[in-house]
Amino acid sequence: MSRPPGRKQDSHKISRELFVLTYGALVAQLCKDYEKDEDVNTCLDKMGYGIGVRLIDDFLAHSDVKRCRSYSETADMIAQVAFKMYLGVTPSVSCSSAAGNEFSLILDKNPLVDFVEELPAERASLCYCNLLCGVIRGALEMVHLAAEVTFLQDRLKGDAVTEIGITFLRKAEDRKQKR
Amino acid sequence: MSRPPGRKQDSHKISRELFVLTYGALVAQLCKDYEKDEDVNTCLDKMGYGIGVRLIDDFLAHSDVKRCRSYSETADMIAQVAFKMYLGVTPSVSCSSAAGNEFSLILDKNPLVDFVEELPAERASLCYCNLLCGVIRGALEMVHLAAEVTFLQDRLKGDAVTEIGITFLRKAEDRKQKR
Repeated sequence: MSRPPGRKQDSHKISRELFVLTYGALVAQLCKDYEKDEDVNTCLDKMGYGIGVRLIDDFLAHSDVKRCRSYSETADMIAQVAFKMYLGVTPSVSCSSAAGNEFSLILDKNPLVDFVEELPAERASLCYCNLLCGVIRGALEMVHLAAEVTFLQDRLKGDAVTEIGITFLRKAEDRKQKR
Repeated sequence: MSRPPGRKQDSHKISRELFVLTYGALVAQLCKDYEKDEDVNTCLDKMGYGIGVRLIDDFLAHSDVKRCRSYSETADMIAQVAFKMYLGVTPSVSCSSAAGNEFSLILDKNPLVDFVEELPAERASLCYCNLLCGVIRGALEMVHLAAEVTFLQDRLKGDAVTEIGITFLRKAEDRKQKR
């Protein structure tokens, strides 16, 4: 059975609205559980990590993608295949360091915040979508790529776009030598 | 712009796997928060209610469905249009009372439990998917239909199928007289 890369069977798709509202319920629950925004952010990142660690198998099984040979290819893969597959959007990618290990995924529209107008004043430091950072981090770790993933800009905080920064922590060469 | 009933634009679809894992993270968080399964179930139902109350607008806007004239039509609509639209599955419907106000939605396969093998022994009373009951209850209430919605069977608990029971609490006639 062969399918075009990045496409999934329609039966594996669900409505985004239900996901967005369920995610909202999750964030609201964590805001009840933790007083500090930083603790909510950490918890969302950890949850996301656990999801990414499991989601990578699904991704590799269904995306038909080839092994990436550079950080740049990896960043493109995340944006063009993974985001498209899981969230139905394709961020643009830019490389933001001379060393070639820092990338930005830029979302004109963030599908996770469809029903969120703005953050409440008392939650100004909340990274509402921090789960996504954890998912990316967890999935990358499963393919032996250590990375820091954080929100650099967030439309919910008044920025013009939503920007996720990915910094790969070790060069591919280092990893080869370690094997 | 007209679309076939129950169909949504593809851009509104996301991968089920991400939803299922995110939902799992939500349930796991509630299990941390509440010792008693009953409290987790209640919380999931309440969260679902809040989601249903908001999701109904999306449903009415995108499903192109006509007003239902009977409980039976409503139950069919939930199974054939709403479940299909939001979860990508279509439960079968059976009427389980002579009064015609009790229905069962029977799912051979529950898309929310893809990654769940079985409930842990100490969580034997957990209604893992109780959010769904709340969603249905909340959405029905927004179209002036009071209903009790509960899990009657659950494959996670060893039953052969997953069965959601919907009991409509007032006859259509009663509601007409009240207006």
